[in-house]
Amino acid sequence: MWTALTLDTWLSRQQATLTDVSGAVQNIIDEVAGRGDEALFDLCERFDKIRLDHLRVSEDEIDEAYESVDPEIVEALTEAFSRIWTFHELQRQKDLWFSGTEDGITLGVKTTPLERIGMYVPGGRAAYPSTVLMCAVPAQVAGVSEIICCTPPPANPLTLVAADVAGVTDIYTVGGAQAIAAMALGTDTIRPVQKIVGPGNAYVTAAKMMLRGRVEIDFPAGPSEIAIIADHTARPDFVAADILAQSEHDPQAASVLITTDPGLPEQVGDWIERLVEEAPRHEIIRQALGQSGYLIVDTIADAIASSDKIAPEHLSIQVQDPLPVLQKVRNAGSIFVGQYAPVACGDYASGTNHVLPTAGNAKLYSGLNVSHFTKTSTVQIISREGIDAIGDVVERLATAEGLHAHAISSRIRREI
Amino acid sequence: MWTALTLDTWLSRQQATLTDVSGAVQNIIDEVAGRGDEALFDLCERFDKIRLDHLRVSEDEIDEAYESVDPEIVEALTEAFSRIWTFHELQRQKDLWFSGTEDGITLGVKTTPLERIGMYVPGGRAAYPSTVLMCAVPAQVAGVSEIICCTPPPANPLTLVAADVAGVTDIYTVGGAQAIAAMALGTDTIRPVQKIVGPGNAYVTAAKMMLRGRVEIDFPAGPSEIAIIADHTARPDFVAADILAQSEHDPQAASVLITTDPGLPEQVGDWIERLVEEAPRHEIIRQALGQSGYLIVDTIADAIASSDKIAPEHLSIQVQDPLPVLQKVRNAGSIFVGQYAPVACGDYASGTNHVLPTAGNAKLYSGLNVSHFTKTSTVQIISREGIDAIGDVVERLATAEGLHAHAISSRIRREI
Repeated sequence: MWTALTLDTWLSRQQATLTDVSGAVQNIIDEVAGRGDEALFDLCERFDKIRLDHLRVSEDEIDEAYESVDPEIVEALTEAFSRIWTFHELQRQKDLWFSGTEDGITLGVKTTPLERIGMYVPGGRAAYPSTVLMCAVPAQVAGVSEIICCTPPPANPLTLVAADVAGVTDIYTVGGAQAIAAMALGTDTIRPVQKIVGPGNAYVTAAKMMLRGRVEIDFPAGPSEIAIIADHTARPDFVAADILAQSEHDPQAASVLITTDPGLPEQVGDWIERLVEEAPRHEIIRQALGQSGYLIVDTIADAIASSDKIAPEHLSIQVQDPLPVLQKVRNAGSIFVGQYAPVACGDYASGTNHVLPTAGNAKLYSGLNVSHFTKTSTVQIISREGIDAIGDVVERLATAEGLHAHAISSRIRREI
Repeated sequence: MWTALTLDTWLSRQQATLTDVSGAVQNIIDEVAGRGDEALFDLCERFDKIRLDHLRVSEDEIDEAYESVDPEIVEALTEAFSRIWTFHELQRQKDLWFSGTEDGITLGVKTTPLERIGMYVPGGRAAYPSTVLMCAVPAQVAGVSEIICCTPPPANPLTLVAADVAGVTDIYTVGGAQAIAAMALGTDTIRPVQKIVGPGNAYVTAAKMMLRGRVEIDFPAGPSEIAIIADHTARPDFVAADILAQSEHDPQAASVLITTDPGLPEQVGDWIERLVEEAPRHEIIRQALGQSGYLIVDTIADAIASSDKIAPEHLSIQVQDPLPVLQKVRNAGSIFVGQYAPVACGDYASGTNHVLPTAGNAKLYSGLNVSHFTKTSTVQIISREGIDAIGDVVERLATAEGLHAHAISSRIRREI
């Protein structure tokens, strides 16, 4: 159950083709495209075993949700919201910035928010109020004016409360690929959005990828992962607890311990056995441990090299001197530095975002952040002096490219 | 030829379905996937009417290209390179930044470059050395170590010189959808890249969209466009010159003048007639003028509202007081402020990027910039004090979500 891995084993598992659900998803997309809201009601009945009579969650339903949630949880959500907001606020770009003016030319960048975005919040095995915060806060900080949320029926009261805390505009009880299709294509009830963010199962991810010509997405999402770089100073009980936490997400979740200490894996294995008994989700954990394991390496540099090839969603650094490791790492969704930084902190309340690229995608994609909800326009303010300063270069290059009218549009301004 | 438009006419033209080339492109992708380099040689022969014996441009071929290019053009390219570099350098994010430490928690963002990217540089109607600079410079500034370029054979000497000036790693003479397939899937000669950027025709764009599960792209590209917001102070000759410059790109290019001055369109039309005669590409220009025209509006606010609905690739602001217009605009690829700022300046040498979203995509996408070539990892450094500060919130939310092992991974650290 807890065994040595090779890097190749991990990488080939990561690259394994996902279950092909594209046929089923295409049928769902076609149904939503053809019959709109009616298709959504029917698909909810088929997949969620509920016949709904409306899709949009009402104010009354949100009030009821508050009544059913422990006030201590509401307080915790509010505290988490505040910490997530503070960190994302630091990522915000200036609305408009300019270079110094030189030669009569001032250049700048103007940042503006998207107008309408959609988030998908899974239901099923667990409620994910934290995901609502992770998707809504960066959009709010960016200044997006309409933020909608789809989640499978029946909506979990925690999800509704989190959506209210986070200022979500509208919540719809629609799940799966049909939710993605509705937000991408629009129905009578759900107007289309510009971008869809948030995690989801294979159907949701397939729908996001297949509808990418109609809507933008954050990035493809797969099962959650952790890599832990540890040396002889790491505590086996902490490492084991982190591996169990990762494993309880999903039977397909995966953990890898990368260590310079050949004795550590056995100690961690013992702690895993001890802790797994108490874990309510131990069946899921045992399945996830099946694709988890450890790599023993010679040096910390080797550990970093292996981790960079894996490009883990979560990277935990539990070594004597973690900051030089942080400096050298290139590929990771979110990095947890030191033995007192379990991934659970970033999942809920440190302030960083937990919507992160998986399956090696951290080589290419950033985790969800404020810039997913903005776009930029470049700006140039050019005076008569400015066109004189660059007109000659513009005209030479335009002429070389055979674009004579481009050259004329510069020359006509310099000849007056 | 130069007529009044309605906003609806423009928007429906923008949204018109592109010619469906997906069948032809899928065949090309399949050929490259199946036969690699051999397919590339065959497709070059079929589409470019050249039987190549190698794909990678040699050092000798680059030296020869320098000999055939006017030194004044090399100098202009170098000057443009320098201005583009300076502006893109301003966009660069810090490699690693941290928030202030509070409660034992320090949060940060680490920015790292992609490793290997590809650019597509069109051949055909004209040479595009400027596009080489626009794609390569932001990648270089970001710190990308391998930047490859595909361009149809025979490679234009200007393109080769620009690639050398811009520090492109390898240049391959492969054009069209087959170039995109080669960079996405890899062949013996061309190793796959992480992201493909740059403009292209309908085949290139279709290939980029179709291969998006295998490679990331910048954004979909279509025919070039300009909107010009002008009042009674605008000079009709300048406006006409800008419209002609836009029109010479492509028979499908489009220009719209949005003006509060009902007399301006006729004057602009007269200047267009006068200037078009001298333009070597007048046939292309006349075709492009067929889908161009003007909107007369009551107020500058109305002009801004129309422009934001169009979300033009290029927005030129030629009014008495342009800065308040700049402040209010939300959707535009690149904004040219004042009557001495023709789009040609941004195409070549002001320093801004000319690879920009078209067809309304500026509502959602930014033009090419340094952040297209980087990704970020969030960081948290948490001390014992830190886990004490947020552990309670983490454990409450984890328990509420049913993720008990997450709660344990926090609690185990607080109980020692």
